[in-house]
Amino acid sequence: MAQPIVTLTTDFGLSDHYVGVMKGVILGICPDARIVDISHEVTPHEISEGGYTIAQAWRYFPKKTVHVVVVDPGVGSARRPILMEAGSHYFLAPDNGVLAPIYYAETHKIRLVSNDSYFLKPVSQTFHGRDIFAPVAAHLAAGVPAARFGKLIEDYLKPMSEKPQRTGKRTWAGRVLKIDRFGNVVTSFHSSDFPNLDRQNFTLSVGPVETSLLARNYMECGPGELFVIEGSGGYYEVSLSQGSAAAHIRCQVGGAVELLLP
Amino acid sequence: MAQPIVTLTTDFGLSDHYVGVMKGVILGICPDARIVDISHEVTPHEISEGGYTIAQAWRYFPKKTVHVVVVDPGVGSARRPILMEAGSHYFLAPDNGVLAPIYYAETHKIRLVSNDSYFLKPVSQTFHGRDIFAPVAAHLAAGVPAARFGKLIEDYLKPMSEKPQRTGKRTWAGRVLKIDRFGNVVTSFHSSDFPNLDRQNFTLSVGPVETSLLARNYMECGPGELFVIEGSGGYYEVSLSQGSAAAHIRCQVGGAVELLLP
Amino acid sequence: MAQPIVTLTTDFGLSDHYVGVMKGVILGICPDARIVDISHEVTPHEISEGGYTIAQAWRYFPKKTVHVVVVDPGVGSARRPILMEAGSHYFLAPDNGVLAPIYYAETHKIRLVSNDSYFLKPVSQTFHGRDIFAPVAAHLAAGVPAARFGKLIEDYLKPMSEKPQRTGKRTWAGRVLKIDRFGNVVTSFHSSDFPNLDRQNFTLSVGPVETSLLARNYMECGPGELFVIEGSGGYYEVSLSQGSAAAHIRCQVGGAVELLLP
Repeated sequence: MAQPIVTLTTDFGLSDHYVGVMKGVILGICPDARIVDISHEVTPHEISEGGYTIAQAWRYFPKKTVHVVVVDPGVGSARRPILMEAGSHYFLAPDNGVLAPIYYAETHKIRLVSNDSYFLKPVSQTFHGRDIFAPVAAHLAAGVPAARFGKLIEDYLKPMSEKPQRTGKRTWAGRVLKIDRFGNVVTSFHSSDFPNLDRQNFTLSVGPVETSLLARNYMECGPGELFVIEGSGGYYEVSLSQGSAAAHIRCQVGGAVELLLP
Repeated sequence: MAQPIVTLTTDFGLSDHYVGVMKGVILGICPDARIVDISHEVTPHEISEGGYTIAQAWRYFPKKTVHVVVVDPGVGSARRPILMEAGSHYFLAPDNGVLAPIYYAETHKIRLVSNDSYFLKPVSQTFHGRDIFAPVAAHLAAGVPAARFGKLIEDYLKPMSEKPQRTGKRTWAGRVLKIDRFGNVVTSFHSSDFPNLDRQNFTLSVGPVETSLLARNYMECGPGELFVIEGSGGYYEVSLSQGSAAAHIRCQVGGAVELLLP
Repeated sequence: MAQPIVTLTTDFGLSDHYVGVMKGVILGICPDARIVDISHEVTPHEISEGGYTIAQAWRYFPKKTVHVVVVDPGVGSARRPILMEAGSHYFLAPDNGVLAPIYYAETHKIRLVSNDSYFLKPVSQTFHGRDIFAPVAAHLAAGVPAARFGKLIEDYLKPMSEKPQRTGKRTWAGRVLKIDRFGNVVTSFHSSDFPNLDRQNFTLSVGPVETSLLARNYMECGPGELFVIEGSGGYYEVSLSQGSAAAHIRCQVGGAVELLLP
């Protein structure tokens, strides 16, 4: 039987002991667990960036994988831990909307994680990654049924959708979802909602900069040329040949993006 | 039987091949080893930061875990490699005080690692992580008894304790142990030495900045408000609601912290 | 039987989901695989830095290890994926010269990876790490014979050698291969080509800065003193006692290095 997989997505960074401690807790409870880092470099407290990250990654893991997502500015306050089942995967996270990109897209069941017999005691007020999320993930990976952790709830947080909004006859307003390491500007315009952009006379604007060029790969355009490309997750990205589009445009995550169609 | 666990704490960073090479060496000797990174982003040559990091983490791993700690400005010089047993865990490190936070707190045995039949030959003068610590850790994880690596010693390095010093009738002097990714300023004042701070009229000063506010969680105070909170390791930390306390105070690791009690 | 090992060397960084996704794909195909990161912090698009990184690391892993190297500015264009066998290890990479430091030094066989039945479909134009390299690596690790992935080729890219060139009776021109985390400046002068430097009256210049001092370890020279040391990979490095030589010299990867011998 394959070893259970637990993935971690946090804003803890890698300079502290926090991530290592979570792994120690997991291995103490579920010695067989394969632990895979998705990213620990989510911008601190940026819930929607954390949600984008796990939403892009989970599907590529085997079924039954337990995904732990801790971007948790409200740790220690009244916000609740939740356990979601969706697409035959498990997701553990604070109920702050970080899982919204997945539960808005997939059939799902969400439980309140309330059974503290699976927690590490005493539960600190500042590190639920260690005291709640890691041990619950490990017990889940070790075979404890989801229902043991708590009851199904319907009143989990439902933040505003990230989908682009129509703002005029020919215009849609979206935003910058993520700037990746290469400076590619990932927009909230998805190819499944805006297909066939290549056959249209579109203009995409990020701040004061606009482009009407769609490329199929990064080598197609000349150096210094700004273009739109369908990224590996299906979102349209603004890229710069041999350079950082984000540095060129000087845009930030959350910034406005406008699409104009003919 | 559970696979043996080897943790790594270094100042090697992640941009070089150094950490990957250590893992290759370990897996070549002990193919079953589970290797877990605690952190490789310890500030270069900062022995006491490395010590803080492993001291915060080791306890959360299963017994018999082998912890390798390489913050080693003296690599290639006369400083010696040591193997410590404490709390049913193993620790491998240079004898430069990096393990002091653990051997000052726990019953321990320390050996000189002198049996070079377990080293990778030829031993370089610049990378004992690869040539000494990784192979010894792997042999230990694979079941070689600790006594095989060398004799017990008593004359390992005993640096000054990090404990706060009393400087007056009502004042104690401590220091900044660590600044974490969120800008939390971890002080050397531990809740076990200074309990019940919440019931006292305390003042904690870091450089020119002082606070008398104790919070139970990060959400309790308003944005921009500086407060003290008991961190997940028991040390009092200075934090800023929705911001970086360290950037606000402009303090650094090693900086002075003063506690005034009524 | 030991679990198969797959190493990853990329310029993807750790802030995105890219590396996590590759690991998910690998574990989905080869659940037993041990995945080890060499580095994901190769400077974006710096093919020769990526080549240096894997060339320094691969030898320390067990035979049959599958090394995946994705520094791939030409992703989606006509450049081809290749599979190399050398030293009883496997290497998967784009055919852009990133493996040159290994195939210029070792007996090798190189195949074109053309059998798309092992690819993840549809193959994106921007993320062959996920769609080609990860699944092919996983199938290889799971036991699929190399010959199944494609035919042997001879016309792989042969970039100019990185070996220092003789420029005069007593002078050689090399370059900066890498600046490591500690600010050590790794030059392309290797101790196997330039042995016994310690017995000679050499001068090594990096930009306007020169040194004639050879040290055996980092502690041998006083603070602030610049010196040459044989690094753990055999290349001569320029180092600064208790400081960053690279910051002192203000040099960059690719910068000129000159060696003058008596």
